[in-house]
Amino acid sequence: MSKLRVESFTISLDGFGAGPDQDINNPMGVGGSSLHAWAIPTLTFQQKLFGNDSGETGVDDEFAARGFQNIGAWILGRNMFGPVRGPWPDESWRGWWGENPVYQVPVFVLTNYPRPPLVMDGGTTFHFVTEGAVVALERAREAAGGKDIRVGGGVNVIQQYLRHGLIDEMHVAVSPVLLGSGERLFEGVNLPALGYACVKHEATALATHLIFSRQ
Amino acid sequence: MSKLRVESFTISLDGFGAGPDQDINNPMGVGGSSLHAWAIPTLTFQQKLFGNDSGETGVDDEFAARGFQNIGAWILGRNMFGPVRGPWPDESWRGWWGENPVYQVPVFVLTNYPRPPLVMDGGTTFHFVTEGAVVALERAREAAGGKDIRVGGGVNVIQQYLRHGLIDEMHVAVSPVLLGSGERLFEGVNLPALGYACVKHEATALATHLIFSRQ
Repeated sequence: MSKLRVESFTISLDGFGAGPDQDINNPMGVGGSSLHAWAIPTLTFQQKLFGNDSGETGVDDEFAARGFQNIGAWILGRNMFGPVRGPWPDESWRGWWGENPVYQVPVFVLTNYPRPPLVMDGGTTFHFVTEGAVVALERAREAAGGKDIRVGGGVNVIQQYLRHGLIDEMHVAVSPVLLGSGERLFEGVNLPALGYACVKHEATALATHLIFSRQ
Repeated sequence: MSKLRVESFTISLDGFGAGPDQDINNPMGVGGSSLHAWAIPTLTFQQKLFGNDSGETGVDDEFAARGFQNIGAWILGRNMFGPVRGPWPDESWRGWWGENPVYQVPVFVLTNYPRPPLVMDGGTTFHFVTEGAVVALERAREAAGGKDIRVGGGVNVIQQYLRHGLIDEMHVAVSPVLLGSGERLFEGVNLPALGYACVKHEATALATHLIFSRQ
């Protein structure tokens, strides 16, 4: 069966997956953008996010690249899709990524507020799911056509899937920065009790990469 | 002035400095001994803890060794000194380390229950301080004769000194294990707000070593 994977999810040394006070100017919360200093220079991110032909190769890039391999659908929490809270005032918010988002496959956005699917350029369609994480996964699995599903985040969404034991593999990068407050990935989630172990760790100058999987 | 330093304090990937349910059979809590897989094989730990002449050298050992350089006194929480809780029933508990403890300098043990100083072989004397962390540091500084003071732990004691902004330098090793529950080093301590930053990080096959200092 296709796997549910977390890839390139980055936390700070003090355990936070995003900084506090997320808004339109701080999509990752205050200070949160420093988390991705390891990823931004990689060839993978340069190509996927900025359309550039060159970037860093090596271990960081290998971890970045695996996050785009064999992915047939994504699942995102609503706060990863945008800064709008509560009922959708209108349909003007179309994601952080412009008209041709990086995903290029169906993306299932968890929200409490229904909204019609949003078809973007390049193969990305945002589907808004109000029936919860498990239903979103079922729909994503159908849409993925046998490929894997990637959970983009945020922290709360990843925790929901971890608590259900539904995540098969999770790559977490730890950036050598401190955020001080925000959302903690491992708060209230007892990974060993859920059957997870760290099966690989590898460090570079910019991050420590960890792979967790269910035993 | 002499520095207050944390050295070789080890936490799990999920942030715990000790496992749950510490008792006489599990001084580091259940699962907690797995934290020190990086330290035990080092030449420094083999010499200091087991009196052996050989051990691993390299990066892990360099970090272990610096923890014993220029140290004139130690500060420990009571739970690091032993499993006894509440008033001392008698003076039979003399620490985890036998009659010739590794410290070989004055050690100030934070406790709510007074007890006369305990003179051990090899230069270690345990002093029991009931007046709190700040007084313990004053007494340790006096006793250290210009050398640095090392805070051994546990989590709660380190947090007290961090919140006072009194720790000058902190070496934390992150072991690639999960504990699931226990005491979290960075819980309720906003390091950047307290002026701390990570100034160095270096990984080995067994641990990621982090150095924090106050800016």
